[in-house]
Amino acid sequence: MNTLNIGLVGYGFMGRTHSNAFLQAPRFFDLPFKPVLKAVAARNEDRVKTFAANWGYESYETDWRKLIDRKDIDVIDIASPNDTHREIAIAAARAGKMVMCEKPLGRTAAEAETMVAAVESAGVPNTVWYNYRRVPAVTMIKQLVDEGKLGRIFHYRAKFLQDWTISKELPQGGEGLWRLDVAVAGSGVTGDLLAHNIDTALWLNGPITEVTAMTETFIKERKHNITGKVQAVGIDDASAFLCRFENGSLAMFEATRYARGHKALYTLEINGEHASAFWDLHDLHRLQYFDHRDEGRVRGWRNIHITDADQPYMKHWWVPGLQIGYEHTFTHQFADFLEAAAKGKSLPPTFRDGLATDYVTDAVLKSGRTRQWEKVAGAPATVA
Amino acid sequence: MNTLNIGLVGYGFMGRTHSNAFLQAPRFFDLPFKPVLKAVAARNEDRVKTFAANWGYESYETDWRKLIDRKDIDVIDIASPNDTHREIAIAAARAGKMVMCEKPLGRTAAEAETMVAAVESAGVPNTVWYNYRRVPAVTMIKQLVDEGKLGRIFHYRAKFLQDWTISKELPQGGEGLWRLDVAVAGSGVTGDLLAHNIDTALWLNGPITEVTAMTETFIKERKHNITGKVQAVGIDDASAFLCRFENGSLAMFEATRYARGHKALYTLEINGEHASAFWDLHDLHRLQYFDHRDEGRVRGWRNIHITDADQPYMKHWWVPGLQIGYEHTFTHQFADFLEAAAKGKSLPPTFRDGLATDYVTDAVLKSGRTRQWEKVAGAPATVA
Amino acid sequence: MNTLNIGLVGYGFMGRTHSNAFLQAPRFFDLPFKPVLKAVAARNEDRVKTFAANWGYESYETDWRKLIDRKDIDVIDIASPNDTHREIAIAAARAGKMVMCEKPLGRTAAEAETMVAAVESAGVPNTVWYNYRRVPAVTMIKQLVDEGKLGRIFHYRAKFLQDWTISKELPQGGEGLWRLDVAVAGSGVTGDLLAHNIDTALWLNGPITEVTAMTETFIKERKHNITGKVQAVGIDDASAFLCRFENGSLAMFEATRYARGHKALYTLEINGEHASAFWDLHDLHRLQYFDHRDEGRVRGWRNIHITDADQPYMKHWWVPGLQIGYEHTFTHQFADFLEAAAKGKSLPPTFRDGLATDYVTDAVLKSGRTRQWEKVAGAPATVA
Amino acid sequence: MNTLNIGLVGYGFMGRTHSNAFLQAPRFFDLPFKPVLKAVAARNEDRVKTFAANWGYESYETDWRKLIDRKDIDVIDIASPNDTHREIAIAAARAGKMVMCEKPLGRTAAEAETMVAAVESAGVPNTVWYNYRRVPAVTMIKQLVDEGKLGRIFHYRAKFLQDWTISKELPQGGEGLWRLDVAVAGSGVTGDLLAHNIDTALWLNGPITEVTAMTETFIKERKHNITGKVQAVGIDDASAFLCRFENGSLAMFEATRYARGHKALYTLEINGEHASAFWDLHDLHRLQYFDHRDEGRVRGWRNIHITDADQPYMKHWWVPGLQIGYEHTFTHQFADFLEAAAKGKSLPPTFRDGLATDYVTDAVLKSGRTRQWEKVAGAPATVA
Repeated sequence: MNTLNIGLVGYGFMGRTHSNAFLQAPRFFDLPFKPVLKAVAARNEDRVKTFAANWGYESYETDWRKLIDRKDIDVIDIASPNDTHREIAIAAARAGKMVMCEKPLGRTAAEAETMVAAVESAGVPNTVWYNYRRVPAVTMIKQLVDEGKLGRIFHYRAKFLQDWTISKELPQGGEGLWRLDVAVAGSGVTGDLLAHNIDTALWLNGPITEVTAMTETFIKERKHNITGKVQAVGIDDASAFLCRFENGSLAMFEATRYARGHKALYTLEINGEHASAFWDLHDLHRLQYFDHRDEGRVRGWRNIHITDADQPYMKHWWVPGLQIGYEHTFTHQFADFLEAAAKGKSLPPTFRDGLATDYVTDAVLKSGRTRQWEKVAGAPATVA
Repeated sequence: MNTLNIGLVGYGFMGRTHSNAFLQAPRFFDLPFKPVLKAVAARNEDRVKTFAANWGYESYETDWRKLIDRKDIDVIDIASPNDTHREIAIAAARAGKMVMCEKPLGRTAAEAETMVAAVESAGVPNTVWYNYRRVPAVTMIKQLVDEGKLGRIFHYRAKFLQDWTISKELPQGGEGLWRLDVAVAGSGVTGDLLAHNIDTALWLNGPITEVTAMTETFIKERKHNITGKVQAVGIDDASAFLCRFENGSLAMFEATRYARGHKALYTLEINGEHASAFWDLHDLHRLQYFDHRDEGRVRGWRNIHITDADQPYMKHWWVPGLQIGYEHTFTHQFADFLEAAAKGKSLPPTFRDGLATDYVTDAVLKSGRTRQWEKVAGAPATVA
Repeated sequence: MNTLNIGLVGYGFMGRTHSNAFLQAPRFFDLPFKPVLKAVAARNEDRVKTFAANWGYESYETDWRKLIDRKDIDVIDIASPNDTHREIAIAAARAGKMVMCEKPLGRTAAEAETMVAAVESAGVPNTVWYNYRRVPAVTMIKQLVDEGKLGRIFHYRAKFLQDWTISKELPQGGEGLWRLDVAVAGSGVTGDLLAHNIDTALWLNGPITEVTAMTETFIKERKHNITGKVQAVGIDDASAFLCRFENGSLAMFEATRYARGHKALYTLEINGEHASAFWDLHDLHRLQYFDHRDEGRVRGWRNIHITDADQPYMKHWWVPGLQIGYEHTFTHQFADFLEAAAKGKSLPPTFRDGLATDYVTDAVLKSGRTRQWEKVAGAPATVA
Repeated sequence: MNTLNIGLVGYGFMGRTHSNAFLQAPRFFDLPFKPVLKAVAARNEDRVKTFAANWGYESYETDWRKLIDRKDIDVIDIASPNDTHREIAIAAARAGKMVMCEKPLGRTAAEAETMVAAVESAGVPNTVWYNYRRVPAVTMIKQLVDEGKLGRIFHYRAKFLQDWTISKELPQGGEGLWRLDVAVAGSGVTGDLLAHNIDTALWLNGPITEVTAMTETFIKERKHNITGKVQAVGIDDASAFLCRFENGSLAMFEATRYARGHKALYTLEINGEHASAFWDLHDLHRLQYFDHRDEGRVRGWRNIHITDADQPYMKHWWVPGLQIGYEHTFTHQFADFLEAAAKGKSLPPTFRDGLATDYVTDAVLKSGRTRQWEKVAGAPATVA
């Protein structure tokens, strides 16, 4: 079996989830390649060295450019902060490497467009880590929608609620807190959380045509960890929008980091003529499904424990009733990426799909400023 | 339409639920009789007078015997403490009155046997207020079982958990606390709570053949409200048993007033070859139903909101989604009793059914003492 | 005790819930008046006669004007379709009657303004039947908010999801279906469902300043039951909006009759700096409450079974663990109305409060047409 | 850092979970040893070779005795069927190897006693894979109990419900089905499922003194996969018992493979004077906790999402809100075992703890036969 040599950029939270996926996938899936954790790149030598040792990377670099220059790297995986995605991805594509990139693809659609152009002109397999598509319960919803089980769709609603930034004492910027620094992150919850909701929605329900949005920054100033000064907060703490999909359905989306009591509550619901489905991240292995075609007297929401072999991805894991964790959304995506890459193909969500989400988040942020309905720029999703 | 004149004995918690049923039933059901709240009897004149005024009873008595002597009373409803059931019921039957009696029928099966003999020899319509049979969700389970939807039954489990007697400071005996006084109540949770679980189980799953039980009194002494003295506690605070049903299924039952966090958690579950059902009193309008014949991928427990017109009793109430309260279990039973009485029939659970439950509670209490498996005396349930 | 003579207009679903409240309140509450079901008015004599007999009204009229002319009526209760509210309420007020009116107060704020003017110039006690304020769990949220337990509010979200109009075969108009006829109802889900969400929100979270909305009619034509012809559907099938409250919080509201699987799912959630609360109508006796001040390790959403005597209204009912039904929201409001009326006061939600909700629904419907953010006309809520 | 060379026996379901733990622990925990997957032993050479390759074992053996003879193995991990535990464990202990053994320790307490004697006389660190102790939510209950948060314990209840053997067509014996073959498994659900419930209970609530039990085999004959013949089924399909703990609390336990609708529903609940806790395996990252000391009005079961850094084991994983899977109960136990082993100590549940559980399961099976209350042989739990 051929090896596939991986070069990872970044060693934060996402660096860990990706590395774990690289190690776990071969134990549970028949892969067309043997993945090799060849090298990891990050600026702080002490820390990258420790990270490499912990996860079993054969080597490390302190400059990602060196990683791209190396001939022994087949795929570049970008797990560094948002402001680095574009430059690294384009360089990797130009060097003929496959590219896996954390979400959001670009801080703006303009950034993302150049990234799409780069991977498509280089013809390299690519994917964006919108990992929630590969929660087994979510993949199951996709199956049900594609089979027509829901019928005409009337409504879609999704939210992503957190509560970790409510304290005024929390600083912004730097290690672990770059998500609060607009220069690095590009936006607040719109790019960090709503982007996940949007990617799944585009996949399940097709293109969004227009949006009207409302954004807010509740805490206006925070100390910046790098400058040491109290500075204006540039990110959106909360972001919500109404929209219409091309298929005629109506939708509501909301993300916030000020919803006390919710740690990482991504919920989605889709209502069709015949059936509806609901999922939430706090119970990720469960699917709620309602089928109006059930006999009326005993019709109800079915609470489905997605742990059986005939449910998506689950034949690779344990036995019925035993749930898997969050981290395996990445394991699944990596296994699927290798399958696609072996055929020279990209894996949805591709860079082009990531761009489609950026078009929506751009429209949301714009509408928050203009207080108008805004059209979403065209970005037909990749056909799987 | 003929009137049906009601004479109620007792004005406690059950006096209120029954009176409410007498008033509500005619508004929501087409009844064969017009119920008239003719008289209520209780010893304390001030209080019975107030009660009569509040609920619209035309008159009151301070001795239940006078109630039975009155020619203008058609049905005697017994809502007084357990130690009074036998004498009143027998007197009422002998006087040719219909009899409705609170549960448990007797403090012992021996008491209940004399009561059954009295109503049967008098030929008067009778019923015991095991009200939970007429929770719409529970009635629905009965329908599903009778239709064979569950197939061969393997397991039944029920419990009734409360936590209101944990404090050592709580006295026993007297107004509102007679349930803690063994002389009045007959037993503790076995007759008060387990009896409910057992009645439903006999109805849904047929006769119980033998039991092995464990009972306990956690707080050994309490002040008695009537004597004013600290006295030994004679009731069982907790009672649990294993048993076998005639149909070959196995079961577990438990009741306690020492399960911190549970107010009145009656739960039941029945597992059949093809399907299972679960219900709990804290969400009485919901039925959990699992049907193995559903397609495997989307098989799960259906959370059914029993509020639709095609679900038991619900066409009489509001619109889908709007739940009814606990008190209407009595309303339903009263409406059904009038239907039966109009045909000269008793309404299950009849006195004979109440006796069947007393046979089981007797066996449970005996097994708690003998530490042996005990056979349940025969008492074929009334055929509805 | 003085009597209070009630004259009801309308005998539909709401006529039943109100009548039931009139009968039930005196059994469970100490009231300052003895309510008397004096008369009911509706056009169809056979049906109004039957209705009167069923609920115990002493008399009936076939013209509501006669009801208002009668000297023996103290309070007019309007439970007829929306297009009749204004005329009846104004006539009742002019005749010096107290007025209780079903929601929405007017089909438009313009209608409602004239109604407010009438009751206020007549000085008659009034209330609007936004009954959900008096779900015990909802009243409890109000207590917690007023006590400052939640702290600064960041988010509010509410929805009302139904699925009963999805079929294209369902006609519009006439008996039981006037809610689908825009001429009678004024609007679709905006006035019927969202109005409930809005009234509760204004009560719990203060005034809404501006909204941006999206409305839709999924089924464009339906047979009209009165004309017999297929006609354009004028109501909104779905309506959603984003808004800002005066207190700086952000909110999302949605109502639809096309959410497959939901019968009458009114849900609300409010997120504060310190605590959050959630409630839904399908489990109306439960309150979900999260308090960040709980010890971190064991912090979680508390699932509170609102059935204890120290919880709003519950000391009037049964014992802990035993839930009450939907209908008692009306019982509570009626009992509270009598308390207020005995002091010559109106009961919130008053007509003025009902107008405040109409200002919001007007703004929502307008924004749906203009596709702009719309300001909400000022209508300070009644101080309780 | 020293290495710890592991020799695994068995490559079934448990062979996979253990191997995964060996690979995962060093990525997420600071371990005192570097674990090395040195060798795996099993009889079928093709399959053991494939297994070794998949999980990265350096070598394989087709006879477990060779594994024990190897000098380069520090710890023997027994993941083979129950009938092999005793011989392997004793041989390993005699060879001076540390021993980790799958549960149940022995098929009977008599077997287990010889195993305890062997490891204790050899003085080798040992543990039994009762993995559910290290579900973070379960470990949290242990913390709360040990801190006295629950107060005096009144009740304990646990069950383990499955439904995978209901079909009469399912054969017994051989690969993947040895759990149905009494000669190999020792018993049915008593040793397979109840043993888990019992181990956790002994840990949380102390010794059990006596039991009364009921066991059943619903399907009396099944085809045997090895002999090819239809043979009597020797295992218990269902097993339930009542018991008393040394601390005075009462308990109920039940396990079955005939509870339609439940895949692997291990639930436990413990009720104390002040607080109660509930957990179930189908939502393993959630803890239900009720604290009576909360303010009465807002007292309820707290639904705690055990994913925060201050909750057991969770600082090693992801971020709040992101759940981990079943497999990490093994990862935790392995990490803890290495900590203990580094100090020359055994890790609870030790072999002695495993024996304590075998004493209870023996008493349960005996009581099922004798239909008497049976005392549980003394086996004081290891002090951690």
